[in-house]
Amino acid sequence: MSKKIVVIGGSAAGPKAAARAKRLDPNAEVTIIQKAPEMSMASCGYPYFVGGVFNNRNALLSTPYGEVRDPHFFVNTKGIAARTETEVTSIDRERRIVRCRDLKSGALDEVPYDKLIIATGAKPRKPPVPGIDLDGVTTLQSMRDADFLRRIRDEKTIKKAVVIGGGLIGIETCEALQLSGIDITVIEMLPQILMFLDWELAEVLENHVRSKAANVITDVKLAGFIGEGGKLTAVRLENGTELPCELAVLAIGVIPNIDLAHSAGLEIGATGGILVDEYMQTSDPDIYAVGDCVELVQRITGKKTRAPFGDLANLEGRVAGENAVLGNSVTFPGTFHTGICKVFDFNAGSTGLSESRARQEGYGNVVTVINASLDKPEFMGAKLLISKMVVDADTGRLLGVQCIGPGDVGKQIATAAMALLGKLTVADLVNADLPYAPPFSLAIDHFIATAHIMENKIKGRLNGIGPVEFRKELDEGKAPYILDVRTPEEFDMMRLGIGETLIPIGDLRHRLNDLPSDKDREIVCYCKISLRGYEAAILLQAEGWNNVKVLEGGIMAWPYRREK
Amino acid sequence: MSKKIVVIGGSAAGPKAAARAKRLDPNAEVTIIQKAPEMSMASCGYPYFVGGVFNNRNALLSTPYGEVRDPHFFVNTKGIAARTETEVTSIDRERRIVRCRDLKSGALDEVPYDKLIIATGAKPRKPPVPGIDLDGVTTLQSMRDADFLRRIRDEKTIKKAVVIGGGLIGIETCEALQLSGIDITVIEMLPQILMFLDWELAEVLENHVRSKAANVITDVKLAGFIGEGGKLTAVRLENGTELPCELAVLAIGVIPNIDLAHSAGLEIGATGGILVDEYMQTSDPDIYAVGDCVELVQRITGKKTRAPFGDLANLEGRVAGENAVLGNSVTFPGTFHTGICKVFDFNAGSTGLSESRARQEGYGNVVTVINASLDKPEFMGAKLLISKMVVDADTGRLLGVQCIGPGDVGKQIATAAMALLGKLTVADLVNADLPYAPPFSLAIDHFIATAHIMENKIKGRLNGIGPVEFRKELDEGKAPYILDVRTPEEFDMMRLGIGETLIPIGDLRHRLNDLPSDKDREIVCYCKISLRGYEAAILLQAEGWNNVKVLEGGIMAWPYRREK
Repeated sequence: MSKKIVVIGGSAAGPKAAARAKRLDPNAEVTIIQKAPEMSMASCGYPYFVGGVFNNRNALLSTPYGEVRDPHFFVNTKGIAARTETEVTSIDRERRIVRCRDLKSGALDEVPYDKLIIATGAKPRKPPVPGIDLDGVTTLQSMRDADFLRRIRDEKTIKKAVVIGGGLIGIETCEALQLSGIDITVIEMLPQILMFLDWELAEVLENHVRSKAANVITDVKLAGFIGEGGKLTAVRLENGTELPCELAVLAIGVIPNIDLAHSAGLEIGATGGILVDEYMQTSDPDIYAVGDCVELVQRITGKKTRAPFGDLANLEGRVAGENAVLGNSVTFPGTFHTGICKVFDFNAGSTGLSESRARQEGYGNVVTVINASLDKPEFMGAKLLISKMVVDADTGRLLGVQCIGPGDVGKQIATAAMALLGKLTVADLVNADLPYAPPFSLAIDHFIATAHIMENKIKGRLNGIGPVEFRKELDEGKAPYILDVRTPEEFDMMRLGIGETLIPIGDLRHRLNDLPSDKDREIVCYCKISLRGYEAAILLQAEGWNNVKVLEGGIMAWPYRREK
Repeated sequence: MSKKIVVIGGSAAGPKAAARAKRLDPNAEVTIIQKAPEMSMASCGYPYFVGGVFNNRNALLSTPYGEVRDPHFFVNTKGIAARTETEVTSIDRERRIVRCRDLKSGALDEVPYDKLIIATGAKPRKPPVPGIDLDGVTTLQSMRDADFLRRIRDEKTIKKAVVIGGGLIGIETCEALQLSGIDITVIEMLPQILMFLDWELAEVLENHVRSKAANVITDVKLAGFIGEGGKLTAVRLENGTELPCELAVLAIGVIPNIDLAHSAGLEIGATGGILVDEYMQTSDPDIYAVGDCVELVQRITGKKTRAPFGDLANLEGRVAGENAVLGNSVTFPGTFHTGICKVFDFNAGSTGLSESRARQEGYGNVVTVINASLDKPEFMGAKLLISKMVVDADTGRLLGVQCIGPGDVGKQIATAAMALLGKLTVADLVNADLPYAPPFSLAIDHFIATAHIMENKIKGRLNGIGPVEFRKELDEGKAPYILDVRTPEEFDMMRLGIGETLIPIGDLRHRLNDLPSDKDREIVCYCKISLRGYEAAILLQAEGWNNVKVLEGGIMAWPYRREK
């Protein structure tokens, strides 16, 4: 007798699980039950549709060869039954059936299963503030949201919008609306945007967003929405500020849809997602769960976490689909929290632990390095990369890498993600054999160069100082001798203005008398990206100064206001 | 007393070793002796200077901040003495001196060393054929070569050129000259260009080169050069063909410059490079050797090999420089033979072992997969990638990845290189956590998707067949039922013409009667990239056909002539 596989949820993880199950057991009867009218939506693409990067709405719903993934497609190409606009109302684990309701006709039905796969996803978090139901307050979570915002873009009637939340989706939405010619303000209750980055990198990115005429306000709380005649007219902050706007997009994170699972008595994890084991199996052996509704293992800390990413949803679905039809045979190992997004002309990515996360997790001997460099030779049209590498100096093991900049961030983060997967140490990374040719990278790839600086720092050969620590020194009244070693022309165009002295690197050897005669005096060297700053530090150390530091990442990674 | 470090060679590995030594021992007296007038040349950039990608010759000789790396720079910024246009004539190991000659004045000198670092590089291989000294026969190895070819580009007097050798440098030179408006023919004595690729991928690339109006002739041997009045007029092949041309560029590989080391009695390895251990130390403990003149360990096979790559030269130099001043403290683990190049609108890269190399190395259970897909969603301006993954099925361990196409090959190869470094298996790769957002990749990255197909193949779930094996079946008279599942429009535009039947994937389920009634008959399915081909195979297997195969990579990876 053929096995009955029922999948609740037709977005990403669900269809993947269904397809995998059907492929491995062609005799299985596989049914997807989906509440929305659409299926297999490329929801990560919504901001690019809204922003006008492409205009064909169907592209979000189609296979690479242009066929729309509707119920017809599923039955025809995959042999899978798909029921859209159908809501599952409860799971009867004893009788092994799901009860559902056709949202168009209202008809009730029961669907029996041998194995059930829950892929109910997550819903946007909505704050309990006044005015939340006003016209003009929306999210960017569903195809309907995307359609609504795209219409706003096309109609060009709205002048001002506020995005609530400076996370990944908030920032992507900000870019999309700004590209539509709308005046944008992003508000974030935390001290920074993009929490997967440490503060100083997020700050550089925030400055980039501002340079694109989109306003960013951090450290503020939403108080509510103000309207007239049911229509949004302003966003009110807790500090009393009112931001006039006709549109507000909520992007303050998502909450796993666990109601069905919870009502059915399945165990829910401490992080709020459905509890699953390495087979993606819930506390009921006949039920699997996948995608944004579950919690996963963080692969570095071993702790439970949530990771609502589209790529992981697909991989989890693949595992659950196989286990549902073949018995538990493959495992899903969890996540490194690898993520990436485009932020106007910058890219921003991260994998593993940030410094602040590593410290929260109790790593006692965390060493970090910030490295700024071009992604390939200048003469090949290079772009800037700023990376921060986080290492557990007790073991030498890489804990995480963050990277921002207009350069090839995707390659940097993919490289780092594989290094984490291989549990590699700094000693492994310094001699990595990465692909090199001038159109693709520097002779010493930015990633390897970052590892080189890290090795020097761990071995006590380079006294690097990050901008946050340096700022703290200055604020505490320490008065290091600050040395900018760029050219006068560069200094005229851009400078920190924190009491620095300019001595170009080429002149330094002949101007040692200009430096502090006290060889114990702290000297902090830098240039645009601190490559020359590093040369200068080496030179001064050789000349007997014994408290020389390099400002990591130089001016390009300086997160504070510059004089010029 | 300060340590005397002498470095012979001022191109890539030498200056890096010198700089590292000086940084770690500021009291060391470090001297570089360089035969050429230039130092620290970005020699991998020559083809792009020749091709006019950039015009500032100094960019090849400068730091990222625009300072020319001449002897003045070395002494000033790094505290290193550099003697250019100075040839080392012999090494006296007993007295620990090198003898040298100033090429401008002819003056002889002796330079004492405590530790010597040999970085003499490699020279272009020159075949012993008639006419090799004619005007117009050159290489692209030195700054002088680059200047010569750049002048040819700028003067636009030359109409036809022949590049001898279809390796990395040959193909880069071909592109550079073709971009200069010169009519190009590349000749290669082997059956394919770019030997780091397996034949079928090299063939796809060869077709791309031809599509750019550059001619490629493989399987032909150079007989000699024909000239008039000392000037090249044609290249003669062994088969008698004469190719008229005014310029011929030899690019048939390099030979390590080992004469100095050999004369000094240092051990030379079986591959022809200077023998060094993991510290980059030669058979004389006071002498290290680095760069293109040495042999290295291949990190997968453990065997000795040569790997004359600029990035490795730098890494080796860094290791030798440290060991020379601190005693043997760091090691260089060797190479995965990671390489990449740009070939007109395509990129081509490889890391680890190709299939043919793996078989030569004696791996008995090699499984390969070819995967063609876009590098990101179509709606984000995607480009094609074609990868071939090579795995040792006995252990599941990744042996190598090759990737070609207009898409983001650099990221694919960097990802694969780190997977090799981590000794990862297919089971690790299928759930890798790579960065995903629509501007950067597919939801299931091309690399992970390739691993998925590999896993299916190893587990016997997918009967993939590569184009070479399929062609062999056809040539041997096997008559599988060949099924193209694209649309009629696609079929009209492009097709293989090997006896295939067209049934679009969407119609397949209703047209099962058109298929062979013999369920044991071999069926080979494909589409443009074989995604739909895979769907079709799944469907047919489910319907009872039990010898269904998928043509890996589909039409895009088909290396043979198509009907249309």
